[in-house]
Amino acid sequence: MNFIYPSKVLEAAVNEFATLPGIGQKTALRLVLHMLRQDSAALEAFGQTIIRLGTELKFCRICRNVCDGEICPICSDNHRDRNTICVVENIKDVMIIENTGQYRGVYHVLGGIISPMDGLGPSDLNINSLEDRLKSGEIKEIILALSATMEGDTTNFYLYRRLSAYNPLFSTLARGVSIGDELEYTDEITLGRSIVNRVPFNAS
Amino acid sequence: MNFIYPSKVLEAAVNEFATLPGIGQKTALRLVLHMLRQDSAALEAFGQTIIRLGTELKFCRICRNVCDGEICPICSDNHRDRNTICVVENIKDVMIIENTGQYRGVYHVLGGIISPMDGLGPSDLNINSLEDRLKSGEIKEIILALSATMEGDTTNFYLYRRLSAYNPLFSTLARGVSIGDELEYTDEITLGRSIVNRVPFNAS
Repeated sequence: MNFIYPSKVLEAAVNEFATLPGIGQKTALRLVLHMLRQDSAALEAFGQTIIRLGTELKFCRICRNVCDGEICPICSDNHRDRNTICVVENIKDVMIIENTGQYRGVYHVLGGIISPMDGLGPSDLNINSLEDRLKSGEIKEIILALSATMEGDTTNFYLYRRLSAYNPLFSTLARGVSIGDELEYTDEITLGRSIVNRVPFNAS
Repeated sequence: MNFIYPSKVLEAAVNEFATLPGIGQKTALRLVLHMLRQDSAALEAFGQTIIRLGTELKFCRICRNVCDGEICPICSDNHRDRNTICVVENIKDVMIIENTGQYRGVYHVLGGIISPMDGLGPSDLNINSLEDRLKSGEIKEIILALSATMEGDTTNFYLYRRLSAYNPLFSTLARGVSIGDELEYTDEITLGRSIVNRVPFNAS
């Protein structure tokens, strides 16, 4: 549905919103019309936060996570275990793992995974900087926390081949039945893997 | 789910997006992370369009539709029938009716409908400016194109009482079975109204 816009300013704003994933012209129009109820100071503030994403947001020199300074809060936290690096695909994965409260090591954000279909090779990812971190000899363990897909497995294999010369311990996330899930709704491959990789029962 | 953000700039942008209707924290984060793939020039352009909504967007002096100048493209179009005013609730309704290509008159945007539940009375709506237009004596017909709800009916009734002194012809949108709909899926009230308001069959 192509609307005839009564205003170029309105149309420009709708078109910008419609470039976002999952937002079409109709939703974009609804969002922009909602914003019109706000005063110009609120709209100025909204616009400025988007502009600042381009001008002020930085990427951590060590792990490539987003941050406001040179080094992200996680890398600069002295209480984190700097001998363990969790390798993730993107910034969101860092936030998701941090949210569990179960990890006290540091991260490395690859910025994607190897995917020939999308034209993404190892040189497009932050792998050189990961290798540099291993050269320091400080890193004892690398946790490969990538997607459980073919691309994720390919990337894991590539990283293992390239980085094993530095002798870290490699580990991956446990695959198994989700907590709260019933067996009948678990797919066969996950269930099979969870039997092979069974763990000692802890009754305490 | 409350994320721990690695950056205040990122967090501010996510919070702004999360104020929009139908967009929660998780969706807002997805949108902002998508935007991070763009360069700072693209983000500057996006931000500026939002700021311009507050600084450059105007409301038509005649019909209160949004526009870039003093008078909207519809009111300034000499080919439109200025004797017929279609009264609508909001800007979007103007765009939806324009999109049908079936209307050649002009509009008047009320900016809402009378709704005591939401604390909206006649004085909150653009009714004085509508009355001013009637005083010119030019207006022959007023089409009441408000929602078919109790609030819409209340507003129609209020407008009729207040403006009938100027002797325009009042009309409302036809209510009936949607084109393409089967009778069994049409609600009883609409179907009943469509029998009472049946129209001559035109075989040509």
